[in-house]
Amino acid sequence: MDITELAGRLAQGDRRALARAITLVESGRADHRAAAAALLDALGSGRQALRIGLSGTPGVGKSSFIEAFGTMLTGQGLKVAVLAVDPSSSRSGGSILGDKTRMERLSRDPLAFIRPSPSQTHLGGVARRTREAAALCEAAGFDVVLIETVGVGQSETLVAEMADLFILLLAPAGGDELQGVKRGIMEMADLILVNKADGELKSAARRTCADYAGALRLMRKRARDPEGFPKAMCVSAMEEEGLEAAWDEMQVLVEWRRLHGHFDRRRAEQARHWFEEEVQQGLLARLTADPAARGRMAELGRAVEEGRATPAKAAEAMLAALAGRAED
Amino acid sequence: MDITELAGRLAQGDRRALARAITLVESGRADHRAAAAALLDALGSGRQALRIGLSGTPGVGKSSFIEAFGTMLTGQGLKVAVLAVDPSSSRSGGSILGDKTRMERLSRDPLAFIRPSPSQTHLGGVARRTREAAALCEAAGFDVVLIETVGVGQSETLVAEMADLFILLLAPAGGDELQGVKRGIMEMADLILVNKADGELKSAARRTCADYAGALRLMRKRARDPEGFPKAMCVSAMEEEGLEAAWDEMQVLVEWRRLHGHFDRRRAEQARHWFEEEVQQGLLARLTADPAARGRMAELGRAVEEGRATPAKAAEAMLAALAGRAED
Repeated sequence: MDITELAGRLAQGDRRALARAITLVESGRADHRAAAAALLDALGSGRQALRIGLSGTPGVGKSSFIEAFGTMLTGQGLKVAVLAVDPSSSRSGGSILGDKTRMERLSRDPLAFIRPSPSQTHLGGVARRTREAAALCEAAGFDVVLIETVGVGQSETLVAEMADLFILLLAPAGGDELQGVKRGIMEMADLILVNKADGELKSAARRTCADYAGALRLMRKRARDPEGFPKAMCVSAMEEEGLEAAWDEMQVLVEWRRLHGHFDRRRAEQARHWFEEEVQQGLLARLTADPAARGRMAELGRAVEEGRATPAKAAEAMLAALAGRAED
Repeated sequence: MDITELAGRLAQGDRRALARAITLVESGRADHRAAAAALLDALGSGRQALRIGLSGTPGVGKSSFIEAFGTMLTGQGLKVAVLAVDPSSSRSGGSILGDKTRMERLSRDPLAFIRPSPSQTHLGGVARRTREAAALCEAAGFDVVLIETVGVGQSETLVAEMADLFILLLAPAGGDELQGVKRGIMEMADLILVNKADGELKSAARRTCADYAGALRLMRKRARDPEGFPKAMCVSAMEEEGLEAAWDEMQVLVEWRRLHGHFDRRRAEQARHWFEEEVQQGLLARLTADPAARGRMAELGRAVEEGRATPAKAAEAMLAALAGRAED
């Protein structure tokens, strides 16, 4: 299928075309990369979906939340895509259980599209693929793109940088565990949702929620937020409670940001950041493409391995050699 | 103080010289970078410490473990340094509580040296600083360098890549939470320690430990491991139990790897990897140093922000411009 045809089918919401296009942006092959760039260019950036970043460590019930929240959204007639950024899958091809088996109901929903995390060598590669896959989902007519990630590390920053909203999902905990969430993550969150607010954990969830609400109040207000945001709320994915209230708050926040120009400004900044990342990745790719540079790298690499040079000194020599070539 | 004097004092184990040298490797300034490279070169790579990477999500009792384990080691007369890799601190300067207040006893121990995580913009910067700080600790006569990290993301891969041993610390959990640990992290672990094997959680800890031991047995044996490794064991930081047994296992593993050449081979590979990272960082730094390149970047960046070009297309144009200049 050529790019124009693929773009056409994708724009009509053809799911197989979407899946195929995402496979294209996931590929590391140079010709696939060029085709992906052409496809994104052909699709343009006219249609917007709401991009929601969602983070939570293992055990907070992230999959159950996405299943319940996504099903509520499709119940309102909205088309929902779920993408995953899972840097730890780089070595082994993902979590022990695949994403789809964790979200059985949503994966059979005709209004939903779930794409498991690809295995990629670099976090940079995963980031690019996810940003591009989100753009493809937007072009294919999805209304909400959920981008989920695990952990408390760099992947959350990445997801926050490609989302319109960033949600932190937590489990009920004792008061002293508040320290577990880094201030940096809290500063990125637009909404903190304490899941498992059901059964025996209900009162613990309320306390945790109050603790976080208190902590959020201690932080300075961001220009992009109306009064009262970021918020902390209780939800129960299991009992499907609080999901609509959470969705209402998200809509209030997004609407305010649209009216005040923050929404578009953020998208513009994100696009610029994406461009800069692409240039960096391209520069590094070039280093391995030039045979002379590859040879010198290998030579200096051996010297480092054998302890004849420190890594920092050898890197200095390599950079000097590259600079010399550029000036010839 | 000049570099030769700093190197001399550091090699004599002077703690203030060590602290000062780490501040130097943490700096982003070009002259500091050059001084840091010269310092590392002057110190050479003669002295080796055991570098132990330690990972665990918030709530597993990582600080208590390091406090108890580190104190046990200093009790044996060993000098212990603790470094932290905390990518999420990039935005705000670290966790709500600093590392030292979380390890009160160890921070007052004359045989221990604790260095909190620096705030850095890039995970790459944190990685470089930590690798170099570990080399400085080795040169300063430390026997064990503990490198701790949080989360289940990319930072664990980074820490595993700069350590001789990689330990995963877990809390007791229900059987179904086994899925929470990614296969990739389990594959990196040399030892899984289930903490909090005390009081009410003791039997839960034993079950969790047995679950992980079972899961480890399902994975293929690595060439660098003797029979029976990686292992899963119970420990209690609170009751200071199982710590010596864990240390014994670490020593058995390291000794086996030394005898079979795996230890040195791994160090050599790590040094090579470090060199390659340095070259990449240097290439990117150069992009922002050339005024013409900076101007073109700014121009294309504006086009992307204003929606006149897609990020991928603009990056293509920028890379073409850079290639043209190099060929002039």
